[in-house]
Amino acid sequence: MNPISTPGNIPSDLVADWQTLHRVFIRPEDEKSRQTLIKYMEQILFGLHEFLNSHVGVTEAIPLATLAKSYTDTTIRREPEKKLADVIKDIINEIAPRAVNVASPYFIGHMTSAIPFFMVHLKAITAALNQNLIKLETSKVLSVLEKQVLAKVHRMVYNREPAFYDTHVQNVDTCLGLFTNGGTTANITALWVARNQCLPATGNFAGVEQDGMAAAMKAHDLERLVVLVSERGHFSLKKAGGILGIGNRNIIAVGVNKQHQIDMNELTRQVEAFSQNKKIKIAAIVGIAGATETGTIDPLPEMAHLCRTHGIHFHVDAAWGGPVMLSEKYAPLLDGIREADSVTIDCHKQFYMPMSAGMVFFKDPAALDRIIYHAGYVNRKGSVDLGIKTLEGSREASSLILDSALKIMGSQGYALMIEHGIDTARLFAQKIKDRDLFQLVTIPVLNILTYRAIPPALKQQMDAGVTPARQQEIDACLDQINTDLQRIQREAGKSFVSRTCLKIHPADAYTAVVLRSVIMNPYTNGSILDQILDEQEEILQSLQISTDLKPHT
Amino acid sequence: MNPISTPGNIPSDLVADWQTLHRVFIRPEDEKSRQTLIKYMEQILFGLHEFLNSHVGVTEAIPLATLAKSYTDTTIRREPEKKLADVIKDIINEIAPRAVNVASPYFIGHMTSAIPFFMVHLKAITAALNQNLIKLETSKVLSVLEKQVLAKVHRMVYNREPAFYDTHVQNVDTCLGLFTNGGTTANITALWVARNQCLPATGNFAGVEQDGMAAAMKAHDLERLVVLVSERGHFSLKKAGGILGIGNRNIIAVGVNKQHQIDMNELTRQVEAFSQNKKIKIAAIVGIAGATETGTIDPLPEMAHLCRTHGIHFHVDAAWGGPVMLSEKYAPLLDGIREADSVTIDCHKQFYMPMSAGMVFFKDPAALDRIIYHAGYVNRKGSVDLGIKTLEGSREASSLILDSALKIMGSQGYALMIEHGIDTARLFAQKIKDRDLFQLVTIPVLNILTYRAIPPALKQQMDAGVTPARQQEIDACLDQINTDLQRIQREAGKSFVSRTCLKIHPADAYTAVVLRSVIMNPYTNGSILDQILDEQEEILQSLQISTDLKPHT
Repeated sequence: MNPISTPGNIPSDLVADWQTLHRVFIRPEDEKSRQTLIKYMEQILFGLHEFLNSHVGVTEAIPLATLAKSYTDTTIRREPEKKLADVIKDIINEIAPRAVNVASPYFIGHMTSAIPFFMVHLKAITAALNQNLIKLETSKVLSVLEKQVLAKVHRMVYNREPAFYDTHVQNVDTCLGLFTNGGTTANITALWVARNQCLPATGNFAGVEQDGMAAAMKAHDLERLVVLVSERGHFSLKKAGGILGIGNRNIIAVGVNKQHQIDMNELTRQVEAFSQNKKIKIAAIVGIAGATETGTIDPLPEMAHLCRTHGIHFHVDAAWGGPVMLSEKYAPLLDGIREADSVTIDCHKQFYMPMSAGMVFFKDPAALDRIIYHAGYVNRKGSVDLGIKTLEGSREASSLILDSALKIMGSQGYALMIEHGIDTARLFAQKIKDRDLFQLVTIPVLNILTYRAIPPALKQQMDAGVTPARQQEIDACLDQINTDLQRIQREAGKSFVSRTCLKIHPADAYTAVVLRSVIMNPYTNGSILDQILDEQEEILQSLQISTDLKPHT
Repeated sequence: MNPISTPGNIPSDLVADWQTLHRVFIRPEDEKSRQTLIKYMEQILFGLHEFLNSHVGVTEAIPLATLAKSYTDTTIRREPEKKLADVIKDIINEIAPRAVNVASPYFIGHMTSAIPFFMVHLKAITAALNQNLIKLETSKVLSVLEKQVLAKVHRMVYNREPAFYDTHVQNVDTCLGLFTNGGTTANITALWVARNQCLPATGNFAGVEQDGMAAAMKAHDLERLVVLVSERGHFSLKKAGGILGIGNRNIIAVGVNKQHQIDMNELTRQVEAFSQNKKIKIAAIVGIAGATETGTIDPLPEMAHLCRTHGIHFHVDAAWGGPVMLSEKYAPLLDGIREADSVTIDCHKQFYMPMSAGMVFFKDPAALDRIIYHAGYVNRKGSVDLGIKTLEGSREASSLILDSALKIMGSQGYALMIEHGIDTARLFAQKIKDRDLFQLVTIPVLNILTYRAIPPALKQQMDAGVTPARQQEIDACLDQINTDLQRIQREAGKSFVSRTCLKIHPADAYTAVVLRSVIMNPYTNGSILDQILDEQEEILQSLQISTDLKPHT
């Protein structure tokens, strides 16, 4: 028995029958309904965010627990509950106001932001065509277009000679990169290729992909396979270690310098130590180009040099920072990325595409041969099918969206947005420094910065010097203040910054709570940033931090 | 130096400047353009497929190689190349006619088909809201809605008692399932959980997720970890074995019976043999509910019983067949699925959603605790953030689309489509049997069947009995005929069936080329199927199969 119930209160005209079904597939009910649906689409396209209230909505009037109570019915109804027009009306009136207005210029807490309105058009087109990029037989020209777009972005990253691109852009035997559903899958794919590269077939052993990690380690007489990345590395890298059978403890966090870049001395020491132990192999070193928490860019040229010297796969996680290469002004920040063996770039971050799409690129057009899979009914050997060398199976045509966006905006359109983000973040940093209540924790190399509130009384004490025990009390107090500050501002719903934990100085034993800001919305400006800081100052005053340093909230 | 060039032929009004950029984010140029864009969206919504020619378009007039020549420019232009309206016009006029018309009722070759027109609306809404389900702070009500939708589908699959769903539907500590980007990621996730379950922490060993596969095998004194699935298993399972460090050779293909279901005798023998070897552990047995090539459903109750007896994780890959449970008529075909520890169901297959979305469910709401990952800035311990227990990172709100579709269609709406597919496939099977030129290879248990063409002269010879050497010649000839037949029909572009390779009888040494048909478009009917078979008969006649049995093409 299926748990499918027929409730009593359904309008009698909503019945699933064959005629209705055909109308649903081919055309919406009648001309009047069709016009209604167009009107709704107009709202979706040009006005949905107007339906969100002025709040950024992370937590508005209704608390989450109350909200959750409205979403507890777990039955699927037998007959239709609502017409499409009513479903859309409900989404606009009920869902949108309770969603998060990531498009607000006051939402400067996460890597999700406003997207150009035309992205909605392009996503709708992708859905209407509903091509499946896993194989040529369900995508045709889109497979060809995807190869072209990947070559364009590969060229942005690697800038190899034109003949290289002529050879590979439409070469069915080689692969410059992949579209994935996001940076996590891109990072997993890169480390998957790196893992397979350093555990190849030998003797009776067919290769790690075929025989697995345990057999691979035995065949290569190894005890550990490790990956090195700074402690600012994205958590997807640890996850990749777990998934790939490397073990997430073998994704080794290397310390950082004052700029939160990987500490090259420590990295070099570790690489040399591991290299002296024949039982340990380094599968990859990962450089970060735009750390999630701080926007930091690692010293890529030095890392590349170290990898080359030791013959180690060099992956660069540029999920966030990759598109900065479109800005002539700031592209030099990513110098050295060209020497990477693989590079992750997200589409739904600084390419301003809707959720969710990412890419991974390989310097060697044959690198992806290490993860080839075939099947009888698709992806046969020698076919053009793009699904042969992907972690994912069925995939939508994200390449059509990126290609169209590049044509509509030009690299200069993207550059303007990216430069605005970095310049505005630098302005924000200055505003933070100019206010007595705040401490800038990390400067915005890109468009991300961290800071924290420090009440003047505490600052004076710390400046004057305190005992370690006293410092511990102050640390705990500051964490509580900043946690409360972030929560209260979020709940007020006018603006949003996020929070994370960082060591203020690399040598600190203590990891402090800090506020984190990501500025990518072109409408975020100095005036808005002042309002956000003003609000934070008001909240701090309301906290009534007592003289014994324990905030009352 | 970025490879960004400025071509000479760009209209002078297309310049990326700050004003243009603001218009792009907030509103399209002016009221006139806005109306144009609405008109295009109307075409996208209700008419895009009218722009596709009458061909299904897998390979139309322009050969792929010629087409590829138009997609070789690998430079990203500095200034905008086109306005949005022109990009859309080009997609409608240039891309769509060269894409594959998967919405055609003559396209009966793959698991990609027409989708209800309202799915485009829903996808556009999802893009416009642009929520990121990785965390509550970028999704809020959508996180709550996602938990509800997952509970609804979990209930469709498992039908546990109502109190179970009351407990878990909005429980932030438990998880009934996940949305993924498709069945492949869902299968990987299920085997990931199964792998971690059977290699837990012991002594100094922290668990396979932490210490990796090699350490895990050593700690548990194992030489091999294996997964058993019939030879009809989807290739994503082998890929999962490779990715997870199990090794794809350890994803063991079990033979099938005449109905292409897993051979229970062979499976039982293998399980018992492996169980006697203390160095080998079975991580999971996978049952198929709707094999990709044949639509076969494995004997799930017997498999569940075997798994229970031996304490083995039972995964059911119902990527294709899952939604059949919405049909009261055909749901009994999936009896036994309720006993699975995990179940994969795709959204972009028989839930008729656009690319790409899938789901994976777990009987035990704590199962996903085995793959928990936290991060400092999101997904903190104790948070509602859904990204804690997913392979993927950022994710779009596919749940909103499925929830809306279930409300618009009712389970009965889906049931009608699914029953039409199965009933029409059975009609197709009869039509194939009724024609002398064809042999039905696998019957449609669901809406998938395979068959092949056998010219009467060859059929007579085989019926009369031939020597093994002669049979080999005939086999090769039949493969060539069916390969040519499929290709010629595809290239003619009026209709499309796919092809794969199968053993006609389980005991055969020879794997034959067969034609494969998937019927899920509600407009595919008997008349269309007759036309497709008529066309195939015409092609067969044109092949002029000579008396020495070697077809000339």
